[in-house]
Amino acid sequence: MKETEVTMVRIYLHEAKAHMAELMQFLHDESKVHGVTVFRGITGFGTSGKFHSSTLIDMSLDLPVVIEFYDEPDKVESIIEHLNTRVKPGHIVYWSARINL
Amino acid sequence: MKETEVTMVRIYLHEAKAHMAELMQFLHDESKVHGVTVFRGITGFGTSGKFHSSTLIDMSLDLPVVIEFYDEPDKVESIIEHLNTRVKPGHIVYWSARINL
Amino acid sequence: MKETEVTMVRIYLHEAKAHMAELMQFLHDESKVHGVTVFRGITGFGTSGKFHSSTLIDMSLDLPVVIEFYDEPDKVESIIEHLNTRVKPGHIVYWSARINL
Repeated sequence: MKETEVTMVRIYLHEAKAHMAELMQFLHDESKVHGVTVFRGITGFGTSGKFHSSTLIDMSLDLPVVIEFYDEPDKVESIIEHLNTRVKPGHIVYWSARINL
Repeated sequence: MKETEVTMVRIYLHEAKAHMAELMQFLHDESKVHGVTVFRGITGFGTSGKFHSSTLIDMSLDLPVVIEFYDEPDKVESIIEHLNTRVKPGHIVYWSARINL
Repeated sequence: MKETEVTMVRIYLHEAKAHMAELMQFLHDESKVHGVTVFRGITGFGTSGKFHSSTLIDMSLDLPVVIEFYDEPDKVESIIEHLNTRVKPGHIVYWSARINL
């Protein structure tokens, strides 16, 4: 097995299913990324100041969703460039990681 | 868009809701972190030796919870310093990542 | 508190419970890893081309599962070597991170 560099990506959204479906379709049909996993958080808050409740109850109304994938650095770079036109600034996080092939 | 360095943080807890709520309140009200997402695991085990069952059944009684956030490295450093007084050693993991702003 | 290097690992599987249980047992009983958390995704697709539906409905039939853990780099390296014999190439992702002890 050979160690190969990849870029890990996590995209932070709220449960707006249409938007997520659109991004998933792009990742699946157009960008042909290695693989994608989507996770739903149980609570969270964003930068917008939306959740200024002191209790956590109100936070559960719009659950966070994370789309995660990894692939070759060059491929991911061009995918992120495209995603930047569809996702709000600061909501895509990425870092170097390794896989064995 | 400009690439900006952030520190990603994941805090590993068990489903002790009071504790989680307290940490979330600190992150939301005091540290004013960029955004926080909480995930619930479906199973897991910790260092404590609590789950020494050879089956996985017993593991599901106290589900793991991960609090995840990212923000500027300096800000995160001081948040982690504070969190270290509230979370058991070795349960906060962090690494460098990037976002586009 | 002292900053210590760890290797973070995420293993991407589909919901084949027997396989996951086997890996969890290995991580728990044999490799004595620091701690393990398992997350279930709400949707996803893999490299195999299995999910070539243009809708997302078919993707939900076999939910993705991620096994996550972190520990000392040397220990993780030997664990990954072993896992490579049990998990398909390209499904184990790992990177350097830090904890405070």
